[in-house]
Amino acid sequence: MTALGSHAADTTLLAEVEAALAGTLDAHELAPRLREAMRYAALGGGKRVRPILVLRACEAAGGRRADAMPAAVALEFVHCFSLVHDDLPALDNDDLRRGRPTTHKAHGEALAILAGDGLMSVALEVALDSPRRGAEVARELAAATTGMITGQVYDTLGGFPGSPDAATRLRLIHDHKTGALLRAACRMGAMAGNASDADLAALTEYGRAMGLMFQVVDDILDETQSTEHLGKASGKDRDAGKLTYPGVFGVEESRRHVERLLAESLAAVAPLGEAAAPLADLARNLATRTR
Amino acid sequence: MTALGSHAADTTLLAEVEAALAGTLDAHELAPRLREAMRYAALGGGKRVRPILVLRACEAAGGRRADAMPAAVALEFVHCFSLVHDDLPALDNDDLRRGRPTTHKAHGEALAILAGDGLMSVALEVALDSPRRGAEVARELAAATTGMITGQVYDTLGGFPGSPDAATRLRLIHDHKTGALLRAACRMGAMAGNASDADLAALTEYGRAMGLMFQVVDDILDETQSTEHLGKASGKDRDAGKLTYPGVFGVEESRRHVERLLAESLAAVAPLGEAAAPLADLARNLATRTR
Repeated sequence: MTALGSHAADTTLLAEVEAALAGTLDAHELAPRLREAMRYAALGGGKRVRPILVLRACEAAGGRRADAMPAAVALEFVHCFSLVHDDLPALDNDDLRRGRPTTHKAHGEALAILAGDGLMSVALEVALDSPRRGAEVARELAAATTGMITGQVYDTLGGFPGSPDAATRLRLIHDHKTGALLRAACRMGAMAGNASDADLAALTEYGRAMGLMFQVVDDILDETQSTEHLGKASGKDRDAGKLTYPGVFGVEESRRHVERLLAESLAAVAPLGEAAAPLADLARNLATRTR
Repeated sequence: MTALGSHAADTTLLAEVEAALAGTLDAHELAPRLREAMRYAALGGGKRVRPILVLRACEAAGGRRADAMPAAVALEFVHCFSLVHDDLPALDNDDLRRGRPTTHKAHGEALAILAGDGLMSVALEVALDSPRRGAEVARELAAATTGMITGQVYDTLGGFPGSPDAATRLRLIHDHKTGALLRAACRMGAMAGNASDADLAALTEYGRAMGLMFQVVDDILDETQSTEHLGKASGKDRDAGKLTYPGVFGVEESRRHVERLLAESLAAVAPLGEAAAPLADLARNLATRTR
């Protein structure tokens, strides 16, 4: 059993994703140093939650997994771009990511900025290559990317409209910063699988609940686990005075949030039956993950 | 007569572009501080060569100008994103752009990085809104953006494949860094105007020759004009040891390059007749511009 699911096929799935990520970068016309930095940023491991969600959502909607691979690769590239830019000295100033030096530490700040940019533009090219409903898939990705950047601005620089309380600010940050891409993962997968409107709606609701749950778990882990265990700096959000679920609601109440959001995720995909079983497993495993 | 054409309609055209750029940013859901920085980066003047090219190429192909406005806005946003990131301390470290402080000087480095990111993602959203051949327009934009980033890597960090001579390195830099977007401007306009294959090919060739000419003129101006006159740092490329046309070929030979590329631009659009007259004027004016 892997960290992300109990199905034996998960190892195969992860290998397919890794091969598609590497293959896409190798096939693209890029300056050699740019390719090297983009490979470093995109192929450094990671849980691959987003591409796996895309593929599983496609299958849950009755689509063929191969049809969703461009969407899966595209979304993971956007996620990797966001990590590279968020880690920069002017933003979160992180030295460690996935247990090794961040891209700007390994390749310098100039190349890290450009590699992030390149991952975003290649991502949009790849999304447009989706064999089914490509324009719709790409539009979903571009809009989610804008939403994620808005979330990063709220998280790093504040400037909320009006004077919302801490719980509202926290919701605004997470809905955008993490939620946008996780919701988009489910929607892009559904579109690539040519989902019916009803299935798209069910997978959107799953993505909303599961995406928020993912972030609450992340906040709890940041508060309770060691840097060594996580492979990235822990306790950093709290030290930086950032809003987190445990900070606003306490660890125990945050754990109850997780349980409620897990139940909502499972209820959302229940009507899809056995085809959505991997998504249900994924949500359960993400709820109980320890890194 | 404006800097970019001799047609009386040019002032109207420029006003339409400015209104569309501002209107697009104001209508988009964005964190307030992000919107502010993106407005600063995108609405700070500039010659608007790229959006005007998009609109004129659309008309040259027999299309309606309004159909190309999303493509025009999208391309200008990508251009503005590239300026914001190129100006960052880790890259060109410029303090002055279009006669005023660069975005990171005015809004801080974190917001400048994120505003650049946001301009790219919104650009792709907008390109997909093109009423005609939207997916094709967006794919052209995404590919040109990747090409431009490759050019910036060559320009800033080198790492050319093989050991090309100076003239080849210069060509590789400019073909990508400036050429990609100017060629894309003509192609995106043609697509938005639902051009025939022959017209698209003619406008592509115009974009290639005119795009290279634009950059040679830029290099000559950087070498021969004052900072005050240009509204941005001059002589900087030479001081930084960057490859430029005057540096490799001398000013006089570079001027002959400009004349030859102008002739190629005019020849390319001659078959389009009167509908392409504004593009011919534009090329002539860009060849003789002094800033």
